[in-house]
Amino acid sequence: MTLNEAVAFLQTHDDYIILTHRRPDGDTLGSAAGLCLGLRSMGKQAYVAVNPEAGQRFGQYTAPLAPPADFVGKTIVAVDTASTALFPKEFSQYLENIDLAIDHHPNGGAYAAQVLLYVDCAATGELVTLLLHEMQIPLTTDIALPLYVAIVTDTGCLRYESTSSRTLRLVADLKDTGIRTAEINTALFETKTFSRLALEAALLQDLELQDDGRIALMTLTLAKLAQTKAQSGDTDNISSLARQIAGVEIGILLREEEDGTVKMSMRTAPTYDAGKICAQLGGGGHARAAGCSVTMTVQEARHTILQAVQTTYPKGL
Amino acid sequence: MTLNEAVAFLQTHDDYIILTHRRPDGDTLGSAAGLCLGLRSMGKQAYVAVNPEAGQRFGQYTAPLAPPADFVGKTIVAVDTASTALFPKEFSQYLENIDLAIDHHPNGGAYAAQVLLYVDCAATGELVTLLLHEMQIPLTTDIALPLYVAIVTDTGCLRYESTSSRTLRLVADLKDTGIRTAEINTALFETKTFSRLALEAALLQDLELQDDGRIALMTLTLAKLAQTKAQSGDTDNISSLARQIAGVEIGILLREEEDGTVKMSMRTAPTYDAGKICAQLGGGGHARAAGCSVTMTVQEARHTILQAVQTTYPKGL
Repeated sequence: MTLNEAVAFLQTHDDYIILTHRRPDGDTLGSAAGLCLGLRSMGKQAYVAVNPEAGQRFGQYTAPLAPPADFVGKTIVAVDTASTALFPKEFSQYLENIDLAIDHHPNGGAYAAQVLLYVDCAATGELVTLLLHEMQIPLTTDIALPLYVAIVTDTGCLRYESTSSRTLRLVADLKDTGIRTAEINTALFETKTFSRLALEAALLQDLELQDDGRIALMTLTLAKLAQTKAQSGDTDNISSLARQIAGVEIGILLREEEDGTVKMSMRTAPTYDAGKICAQLGGGGHARAAGCSVTMTVQEARHTILQAVQTTYPKGL
Repeated sequence: MTLNEAVAFLQTHDDYIILTHRRPDGDTLGSAAGLCLGLRSMGKQAYVAVNPEAGQRFGQYTAPLAPPADFVGKTIVAVDTASTALFPKEFSQYLENIDLAIDHHPNGGAYAAQVLLYVDCAATGELVTLLLHEMQIPLTTDIALPLYVAIVTDTGCLRYESTSSRTLRLVADLKDTGIRTAEINTALFETKTFSRLALEAALLQDLELQDDGRIALMTLTLAKLAQTKAQSGDTDNISSLARQIAGVEIGILLREEEDGTVKMSMRTAPTYDAGKICAQLGGGGHARAAGCSVTMTVQEARHTILQAVQTTYPKGL
């Protein structure tokens, strides 16, 4: 679907329910809130389905947009959700009837009747901003704030390679509404709890370097979580830590889960394709950031992921 | 001087020497390089005076622009230098004859015959970009790269409050030249050496909290520097660490210097004026980031700076 076709779709439909993905981040919740409020300003009825995993940080944008008990949605739109496996189980009633998926993940949204997929958007929030712009919906602070949060969440606050000059100009438009971005930036990107800092120190303490320091492996065990008294929010984006060390081109976090699986997260330098490596173990993601989940011990997982790197890059790093 | 007057000034003068400040950062060196190359593209002769403290990281932009031995500058322009005390001593020959100062620091540039001062610019690099735009100088990657570095250096990569929608649109223009910004962002803002990480851990280990956690004091002693094997680059911007902790509104770094002085750096939340506090001890700076230097022990300095906070905010934080 092109942007213009999506505009026509949104203008001709009504009674929207917007869906977000599991472990919801700023991009899915911010995009949902921005789209919902944008649709409302066109005179549409629109709500965001309650995501049970939405925390205070990002959930604040969608909580006031929950549908009333008697609302019957006629048009189901999913944002930022690449596959149906990524929806919370509470959304199972909608899965067969998703009318439109709006996404920026490669191959995302194939489950929906229509897909608006722009992989060159740094965030689904950028695509929603573009969509509102095309629909000539005037931006208000209420609409701009969640969309700003969406875009900065997925771009590391406008730092990542995916940030284009279009991203920056759209963010400039959002800022022109008068939203206070510095406080958001500080809260999301600069502030750390003491327990987060303790957790980072614990991860660095037994960090392993391989291949002359080009691969860094960190292990987040359940014991380490308990010892540092880390709260759930303390682990957000912690997989990026290894790649922050000078010389590290592939940063890996192995995270021991309570269900006996090990979740792997990988961040890579532009020369290496994290998605390709993780796909070997049944996972996926972007070229610079990807992940997978395996059922084995942390030690076995460590061996397995290094093997996957070697198989993907047999000539070495 | 208005922007238009500065344009007229730059168009009618020639044979430029551009000066940068001591402990040169990305903003002064990037602004100098961008301005120099911009002037050259207008057909002017322009060079950047060799700043002996310019390191590889930012010095790479100005090193190729050093004046030949027989060059006699006729127009001296200083960038990003608030007062003459901030020039390297090697520039003393120029100090009486500075024709134009281009700056964004409050009250900056009063030493020059003409001052182009825009305090609403997030960086001097933003002001230079605006100037080149007004002069209709086409941006090339060579011009855009140092100006990008200048702007992101002073805005924490577009995060700080000072980043306006104009900043973002000008950065979008710079990015449109095709410069690779992700690598710069990673190098400047995401990559840390092992010794830097060790230094951060050492600072956090004996960090002191005051006023129910609203003030955080860190002490960087010469012993700590030796113990962590920190290199000079490892301490860049380290004063921002204390403010990264949730709840901290005034973050202070006391740094023991080899000459027996203690250098204080302060970062504050929007509610507190760091410049005002540091001015009490003969220092200065911006509202969110300021500093001063005192001749006393680290313990005395700790007491003194807490007093200065109390004097500035007698009703408490």
